[in-house]
Amino acid sequence: MRNIRLTIEYDGTRYLGWQRLGDSDKTIQGKIENILTQMTRSKIEIIGSGRTDAGTHARNQIANFKTESKMERVEMIEFLNRYLPQDIVVKKVEEVPDRFHARYNAKGKKYSYYVWNDLIPSAFERNYSFHYSEKLDVELMNEACQKLIGTHDFIGFSSLKKTKKSTTRTIKELAIQKEGRLLHFTFIGDGFLHKMVRILMGTILEIGAGTLKLEVIDEVFESKIRSEAGITVPAQGLFLDEVYY
Amino acid sequence: MRNIRLTIEYDGTRYLGWQRLGDSDKTIQGKIENILTQMTRSKIEIIGSGRTDAGTHARNQIANFKTESKMERVEMIEFLNRYLPQDIVVKKVEEVPDRFHARYNAKGKKYSYYVWNDLIPSAFERNYSFHYSEKLDVELMNEACQKLIGTHDFIGFSSLKKTKKSTTRTIKELAIQKEGRLLHFTFIGDGFLHKMVRILMGTILEIGAGTLKLEVIDEVFESKIRSEAGITVPAQGLFLDEVYY
Repeated sequence: MRNIRLTIEYDGTRYLGWQRLGDSDKTIQGKIENILTQMTRSKIEIIGSGRTDAGTHARNQIANFKTESKMERVEMIEFLNRYLPQDIVVKKVEEVPDRFHARYNAKGKKYSYYVWNDLIPSAFERNYSFHYSEKLDVELMNEACQKLIGTHDFIGFSSLKKTKKSTTRTIKELAIQKEGRLLHFTFIGDGFLHKMVRILMGTILEIGAGTLKLEVIDEVFESKIRSEAGITVPAQGLFLDEVYY
Repeated sequence: MRNIRLTIEYDGTRYLGWQRLGDSDKTIQGKIENILTQMTRSKIEIIGSGRTDAGTHARNQIANFKTESKMERVEMIEFLNRYLPQDIVVKKVEEVPDRFHARYNAKGKKYSYYVWNDLIPSAFERNYSFHYSEKLDVELMNEACQKLIGTHDFIGFSSLKKTKKSTTRTIKELAIQKEGRLLHFTFIGDGFLHKMVRILMGTILEIGAGTLKLEVIDEVFESKIRSEAGITVPAQGLFLDEVYY
């Protein structure tokens, strides 16, 4: 059996997210598995590094699958990009050791979130950012980012209910870059709980807009109560940039 | 009568182009006129600075219309952006002297064309660039640009048949910028014939790829024969950036 690793870019606008739902063609995983099954003429299941929500994008999602196929890697990448829809692109096909598992072996991830901060919306950024027109205090948001960096129990900043699994994660980097009217937030960490990036983003934005106080961060770390944190910002501003192994 | 000038941004992907076709809702002009007619409760016709083809985008298209409406400009911009689809945005509403005519008064235009120059396509640039994977000689393309700058009869680089109107135009600037795997071409001139930017682009690219010689430019200026020039590149790489008055 060969173990094949894929690097995948996708525009999530038209999809229900990464994870296959029955036979649905409206998921990224489902689309790719269908083409791989045609390509190898045997049923293929792929393992992604993790799910992405409906509307979320990826620049370098990683997945792997096992196959008996003898097809060359260059033929595979050609076949995949010929038959996949144009909003899903396979950027790399690599052969990896049998033990490589895209989810279990992931050591960390990098996400970007984009905020279009202007009164007037953008025709081009509409599917790739959150249009938020409140005046934002970038300095205050930077202070919020500093408070979030480090190792904490992030359950209050996630959509998870109480769980036996650890909800402690480490954020290594959380930075803001202003690119014109676009604010670009970068998150690097060892892992992120379900909706964690989007709830952290909503909290940072509400602090920047003055509808939440900076202290809310420590309060939610303490109370672990989701409803005390900020809004969940929309999925379309979120990009999975990198998976680290 | 007030004369209102609009600055409009649009993602042309879903549309049949700028120019209204009967009652069709699938043109930019048609969409905007329908909303303006609702807004002012009387039939509105808008004059654009010029047409854009199906799939072509605009960052700052200019249009004007006459109205008896007493609505404030801030109310207009709010109404328009509330009811227009998200891929059409009105960026500015200005009141201008009665004699202002968006087409007749246009003194020049700036266009951008984007080429995605890589073997692997891009999921994000697919609607905003031409995927052209041939190896390109940028220096040779720069020489081609230098030859095109200036005042020439561009009829051979357009889709026009013989016409009594002048087909002489002046290109003031034609520059190439490399932005990663994206090549960004900028055209500034006093006016462009139908499909002229796309045929010039096809000619420049074919020179860069080596399938046409640099001399073809002078030959087409001389012969005025369209078929001797390069391909017409796809509309989705083209952006109307600015209209000069």
